[in-house]
Amino acid sequence: MSRATYTTPQDAEAAFYEAIERADLDAMLAIWAEDEEVVCVHPGGARLTGFEQVRASWTQIFNSRQRLQIRISNAVYVQGMMLSIHSVHENITVVGEQAPRPPIVTTNVYIRTGGGWRMLVHHASPAPQAPGPAETSKILH
Amino acid sequence: MSRATYTTPQDAEAAFYEAIERADLDAMLAIWAEDEEVVCVHPGGARLTGFEQVRASWTQIFNSRQRLQIRISNAVYVQGMMLSIHSVHENITVVGEQAPRPPIVTTNVYIRTGGGWRMLVHHASPAPQAPGPAETSKILH
Repeated sequence: MSRATYTTPQDAEAAFYEAIERADLDAMLAIWAEDEEVVCVHPGGARLTGFEQVRASWTQIFNSRQRLQIRISNAVYVQGMMLSIHSVHENITVVGEQAPRPPIVTTNVYIRTGGGWRMLVHHASPAPQAPGPAETSKILH
Repeated sequence: MSRATYTTPQDAEAAFYEAIERADLDAMLAIWAEDEEVVCVHPGGARLTGFEQVRASWTQIFNSRQRLQIRISNAVYVQGMMLSIHSVHENITVVGEQAPRPPIVTTNVYIRTGGGWRMLVHHASPAPQAPGPAETSKILH
């Protein structure tokens, strides 16, 4: 598997969402740090840790043959020397469905390695359709 | 409001969960960076950004008078010079309820400021009760 080198976390993030849209497993795995400390939480899912669990989950997802289009909005970035934090809304349309799905709130963390910026954390969770302060009255904390 | 100085992100994290257990709003707000880029996602909730939205949400939560006990497990830490990433399971018991709630999967990010380590991101989402690879078959990505 040849690995691209991403010189910025933004490049790694663009490649991450392109890999999902193309259901390209090699491209997806090339973006992740090969590390026991990688963390992946798919919407509504359990926490996966370590490269092997991450690999297994994307293999299963891409095998489903469900094709997705993703538009990113509301990005907030905080970048350090070694780590870069991205908070985004994923606006996902399943190809073949008319209406877009409710937005997904996602925290992505990238780490600078000898081979460029790689994904360290992907934490995605479904957001309510009409977000607002009133939402907090229903939640535990 | 006097502000404690947390010399490690672990100290800030301990103070964060103590503030929730005590429903101590001043202590909670003292832990967050006073920054437009702070991000808070309560379980099942929309993304909140900026100190004012974060303040309003914790005010509302602590006013509910629901008291929580939180045990942290399965911690994974990756610390850089300026940013520190913590992935944890929050095991929450509501005081007065017999059974614990299902675990919450949480990504916490701390940033080193002139006043010590502060919380930059808190992203919490409900995990299924029995996590495992089979979970991924039900999810969007």
